Amino acid sequence: MSVTLPAGFAAAGVTAGLKKSGGLDLALVQNLGPLQNAATVFTSNRCQANPVIWSTQVMSDGRVSAIVLNSGGANCYTGSIGFQTTHATAEAVAARLDISSGDVLVCSTGLIGEQLNLDLVTAGVLDATTAIKTDAATTPEAGLLAAQAIMTTDTRPKQAAHESAAGWSIGAMAKGAGMLAPGLATMLVVITTDAVLESAELDTALHAATRVTFDRLDSDGCMSTNDTVSLLCSGASGVTADLTEFTAALIDICRDLTLQLQGDAEGAAHDVAITVTNAVSDDEAVAVARAVSRSNLFKSAIFGNDPNWGRVLAAAGTVPVKDAAFDPYGIDVAINGVQVCTAGEPDQPRDLVDLTGRGVTVLIDLHAGSETATLWTNDLTHDYVEENSAYSS
Amino acid sequence: MSVTLPAGFAAAGVTAGLKKSGGLDLALVQNLGPLQNAATVFTSNRCQANPVIWSTQVMSDGRVSAIVLNSGGANCYTGSIGFQTTHATAEAVAARLDISSGDVLVCSTGLIGEQLNLDLVTAGVLDATTAIKTDAATTPEAGLLAAQAIMTTDTRPKQAAHESAAGWSIGAMAKGAGMLAPGLATMLVVITTDAVLESAELDTALHAATRVTFDRLDSDGCMSTNDTVSLLCSGASGVTADLTEFTAALIDICRDLTLQLQGDAEGAAHDVAITVTNAVSDDEAVAVARAVSRSNLFKSAIFGNDPNWGRVLAAAGTVPVKDAAFDPYGIDVAINGVQVCTAGEPDQPRDLVDLTGRGVTVLIDLHAGSETATLWTNDLTHDYVEENSAYSS
Repeated sequence: MSVTLPAGFAAAGVTAGLKKSGGLDLALVQNLGPLQNAATVFTSNRCQANPVIWSTQVMSDGRVSAIVLNSGGANCYTGSIGFQTTHATAEAVAARLDISSGDVLVCSTGLIGEQLNLDLVTAGVLDATTAIKTDAATTPEAGLLAAQAIMTTDTRPKQAAHESAAGWSIGAMAKGAGMLAPGLATMLVVITTDAVLESAELDTALHAATRVTFDRLDSDGCMSTNDTVSLLCSGASGVTADLTEFTAALIDICRDLTLQLQGDAEGAAHDVAITVTNAVSDDEAVAVARAVSRSNLFKSAIFGNDPNWGRVLAAAGTVPVKDAAFDPYGIDVAINGVQVCTAGEPDQPRDLVDLTGRGVTVLIDLHAGSETATLWTNDLTHDYVEENSAYSS
Repeated sequence: MSVTLPAGFAAAGVTAGLKKSGGLDLALVQNLGPLQNAATVFTSNRCQANPVIWSTQVMSDGRVSAIVLNSGGANCYTGSIGFQTTHATAEAVAARLDISSGDVLVCSTGLIGEQLNLDLVTAGVLDATTAIKTDAATTPEAGLLAAQAIMTTDTRPKQAAHESAAGWSIGAMAKGAGMLAPGLATMLVVITTDAVLESAELDTALHAATRVTFDRLDSDGCMSTNDTVSLLCSGASGVTADLTEFTAALIDICRDLTLQLQGDAEGAAHDVAITVTNAVSDDEAVAVARAVSRSNLFKSAIFGNDPNWGRVLAAAGTVPVKDAAFDPYGIDVAINGVQVCTAGEPDQPRDLVDLTGRGVTVLIDLHAGSETATLWTNDLTHDYVEENSAYSS
């Protein structure tokens, strides 16, 4: 149930002193081989943090031996000094593990615009590399420590795993509070597998999985500068995985983590699944769902247990025709199973909708095609505002 | 200082009983001529309310004799019954004023998805048309009643006026709480002038004005189904206006109203002016400013008096390259005059920024061109969430 489940992986989580809380804040995952294949998906934000810039270079040959992650600082907009910190972190890991620094991914999460303390990071790397060389580093406990060390405002560690009957397995950990943390929370995900797969295959599978999972979590419409999803492959099972089966398992893992992220989104009182059906295409369904997920009026209404379907339609109406074809007066809306709007007119009384539970489903039928997609979001709450308005330093 | 300032206009504001509060809720403005020229700008939302659909038809000949506006219900997503209500409202006004219903604009604001009570509207029209035939209907007091009757959650009426040395004048009233009201608030604006201008000239001037004023107020990123800005021209001054001078005055009026709307945005604790400078084009400057204005993380930080410039850059970074050219590591950011970021690196300490006042300026220098644009927004507050999460009916 952790990144150490697949054979060929060791993990560590230590306290480097970067977090003011004094908690675990530096994680390390090492791929012991025999393969060192990998794939990654980075944030599409043009403002990329130094570790993202570094890790993009690392990925040029699709080979990764280790990944080091810190909480307590994003190392973004910290200029050349910040980049040197990232580089030095990779070098420190490489020197201790006798690998190339060009095969070390680096991830950071925390406040933007402040330098990381390199002395603390270096000391943390020493501790983590010491820990990762012990037998304990391949246990579930070690994986859990790593998952805890990447938490920021997460209230619980997030892990997932899958064991294939064919003999290979996948393990994963994630952090992120729906982009809701002070200082711009970041989604970081590390997925490990002992299946035998080429880097190009990993890349295909990972993009297929993130497209329908992490890419469809839009808790508060904000996009981090540091988001990184990585998939490391040791091949230690010796079993070549069927790519279709592997991709399906990877999607399950990523959806599981996505829902864990949604469920732990800071300040959220409701987990909302917006499903758009009978769209012309998958992308058009997502475009409509995303517009609704980003309506602060809709999100505030859900917090207030108000099935305000007018706000759903008003948000849908902001999607340009080129992005989604539909007749704005032909839409049906159901909230938690109650059909409140049919063909653009009121249907069942809104009072019938019970929004007191945490889970909310919004079903939008465009009557324009045959494709369906679901996007996950949260409500807009007092706690969201509170947690994001507290002074960040 | 009201829509009755220009010669040739009468106004009324009455209580029709549509608002639960029992306040004024139906306004009427009549153009007594001799010209009945007009221009309008409607919401670009694809989901348009019945009065917008009706009024778009009215504008096909650019001729408007009267505009009737109600608060207490948006008449949107109310189907054919709702459209008949709008039509009947225009007919009632036309019959009483002996004009064509095809020359009567209708505007509504309030909750979406509920029928307006036509009996109440009709009775209100009777009262308003009686009032508008009296001598008092051309006084500032009558204009103020009309401005009060279109308020929803606005805390104060919003009016503006301009008198040209050339002998013509402009009067205006507006309502709207920054799209922040329960049930989806709507921006409604009525502008009157006694200058002599053709409808096509009015249209040119109005679009030029709204483009740099109302279109750049983005309080909470939500777009109404009912927004209507109308410009009515009586020509009663007998003075043909210079179009350049008229447009400049109109821009001033619209900017004045825009800032009044911003200053009364529901729940807001800060009025934020985001200026993007040295952009390749005006549109590119607006694209960057709009992305920042829609970042809930940035808006929450401002509420918390936190000059979190990392959130400014992270939001700017979400703008696609095709929409705005800039080097994400070459941006400067100043908040309330303190240069907190230069060329993508920390500059002055953020502690120097004082955000305790209501007014906030954010200056983003893209170093990419020579164009500048300002967009106005508000912070994201507890009161915003509270006012928009209360049950809407």
